[in-house]
Amino acid sequence: MFKFEILKECTKTEARLGRIHTAHGTIETPAFMPVATQGSVKAMTPKEIETLGFEIVVVNAYHMYLRPGHRKVEELGGLHKLMAWNRSILTDSGGFQALSLSKVRKIKEDGILFHSHLDGSEHFLTPEKCMEIQDSLGTDIMMCLDECPPFPSSYGYMEKSVDLTTRWANLCKQAKIEPGKALFGIVQGGVFRELREKSALELLKIDLDGYAIGGLGIGECKEETYQIAAFTVPYLPQEKPRYLMGLGMPEDIVEAVSMGVDLFDCVLPTRNARNGTLFTSHGKMVIKNAHYGEDESPVDKACECYTCRTFSRAYLRHLYQAGEILASRLLTLHNLHYYGWLMKQIREALGRGEFSDLKAKFQTVGGLKESCED
Amino acid sequence: MFKFEILKECTKTEARLGRIHTAHGTIETPAFMPVATQGSVKAMTPKEIETLGFEIVVVNAYHMYLRPGHRKVEELGGLHKLMAWNRSILTDSGGFQALSLSKVRKIKEDGILFHSHLDGSEHFLTPEKCMEIQDSLGTDIMMCLDECPPFPSSYGYMEKSVDLTTRWANLCKQAKIEPGKALFGIVQGGVFRELREKSALELLKIDLDGYAIGGLGIGECKEETYQIAAFTVPYLPQEKPRYLMGLGMPEDIVEAVSMGVDLFDCVLPTRNARNGTLFTSHGKMVIKNAHYGEDESPVDKACECYTCRTFSRAYLRHLYQAGEILASRLLTLHNLHYYGWLMKQIREALGRGEFSDLKAKFQTVGGLKESCED
Repeated sequence: MFKFEILKECTKTEARLGRIHTAHGTIETPAFMPVATQGSVKAMTPKEIETLGFEIVVVNAYHMYLRPGHRKVEELGGLHKLMAWNRSILTDSGGFQALSLSKVRKIKEDGILFHSHLDGSEHFLTPEKCMEIQDSLGTDIMMCLDECPPFPSSYGYMEKSVDLTTRWANLCKQAKIEPGKALFGIVQGGVFRELREKSALELLKIDLDGYAIGGLGIGECKEETYQIAAFTVPYLPQEKPRYLMGLGMPEDIVEAVSMGVDLFDCVLPTRNARNGTLFTSHGKMVIKNAHYGEDESPVDKACECYTCRTFSRAYLRHLYQAGEILASRLLTLHNLHYYGWLMKQIREALGRGEFSDLKAKFQTVGGLKESCED
Repeated sequence: MFKFEILKECTKTEARLGRIHTAHGTIETPAFMPVATQGSVKAMTPKEIETLGFEIVVVNAYHMYLRPGHRKVEELGGLHKLMAWNRSILTDSGGFQALSLSKVRKIKEDGILFHSHLDGSEHFLTPEKCMEIQDSLGTDIMMCLDECPPFPSSYGYMEKSVDLTTRWANLCKQAKIEPGKALFGIVQGGVFRELREKSALELLKIDLDGYAIGGLGIGECKEETYQIAAFTVPYLPQEKPRYLMGLGMPEDIVEAVSMGVDLFDCVLPTRNARNGTLFTSHGKMVIKNAHYGEDESPVDKACECYTCRTFSRAYLRHLYQAGEILASRLLTLHNLHYYGWLMKQIREALGRGEFSDLKAKFQTVGGLKESCED
């Protein structure tokens, strides 16, 4: 059922135009996957997400396991039915959240012991359990359980961690899951090239359906992020989808696409929106700034989203200052529209063989590299 | 510009089918006006409000005066433009909020001295200022400044208060406002019939464009609410719109329509939605109740709103429990759809000459009188 095809390759960069097939349709790549942490892209309906052009969302297995519970989701007909989302779903393993959200946690050979951030109850997340959870959620793409050590971690710790992640990936691969679902591995290794290489090579032996780069964007500087990503991508098989986890400033996406990455997820467009920060064709915009209170123009004249076609900066600032839910809605809609537009630009440029021009223009305009208050 | 016409009268009750004309279109009455306290019906877009069939919203002059400021709204082209709402707007006077939201407040002959609930700054709201604020907001229907004493208040206090409200209404009527806008008076008098009669008769002399009944639903028992409303309505001119302020359980609306009331506003459908309480054709429903967590059916099988056509009670409960913004959106959409549907049923029944049947059925079914958990 799961299939990835490369439609066209950029001649000047490593970028590629592709298409993923799942039981829930196709995903044109490079693709951005909005994050539906608890089974909802915050403030958006599934209909809106589809209208914005997104073909896949990321759901957090950790959250769905704790609430409402993966077995309950299964009884209710699975995530797609529950969320009324008929396109593809990727679930992350829950490992990152088990480590980052729990105050009490212990990494053992068999899995991760953690306490629920909701009620303090104790849970043990093994690779087998991780597969069981994602499988019963009815996801299209599952992620192997991995350990993502904090930044900075020592070489010694990271080396052992990479080996553990490999052993867990083997166990995930052996788990019984419903046919047709894809299982992706996650390359770790922090900022150590030898360990990134080791992690990638070991995971390749397991023959997974796709490969992700994890453990980036967690504290290291951006130059290092790019260097490690650029170093790691070539180790990942050409014929399988590549996914850069959790990273997604617009410039990160353009850069990583040029390295040959196909999939992205990030909470930035949705979280920033709720904090009043907007992505626009002329840079970042902080809507709460006082001078917008008298500004009758739209957030982005070049943008065709409902928010920009309908409301002024002054009104959006008012809604934000007044704590209105409509602010979260309208700003999220705009930011996701921007991301949908960006990915479409990238794919169309790849289709025309002009991706390197788009990348250069993107860097020249610089709007997206800096915070410009217009 | 402002005009009210009665299209049909019920032969068995005092109910009437009517139509209000303002500079921003027509309003079929009896009508429910969703509350856009701070210039936004909470969690909804203006497009959705219009699609739900509402032709007028209520905006709070007190809130807009304090933030963003009525002069700023005026500079930005007025409330309609700011909110992207091209239908009618009624603004309340702000008197109620100046008294209820401020810790420091003093009622003087000239107006209300209060401290802003936002920053503690001191303000003095006179009838003239009240007219200036509403006029510059660009509203279609303005409300006179009134005093709404708390329940219970003594007869002596209430009598003086009614006289003050009458004097203020006179001053409001004398204020210079843009032609074409309507000015409604507010009958006060608490639970004292003599004072309600007095208040109504005095206000009638001022010849206002419509008459509201204020000061109900603030602590007195429901029987008293109905009795006072039923007692007061006949004093209000037949040929002018009648507005029952702030009251709006579905059964209240049906009851008051039968008394001859034309306009309603209430925060219940929106506020209850955000608290997880839904109005349905089979009674109230508290979505957070545990058993809904496994319930695959829609909130209301008879309802055609997006929420009911798309999502299960189980998912809505999950969203509510998880604190997702989408819960507020979907539940608000449903509740407002219910109110829109209710008003349409009432108007259609009036048109067919069958309103008393609808009222009887409404009481027989009893679903809306009691909290039924289905």
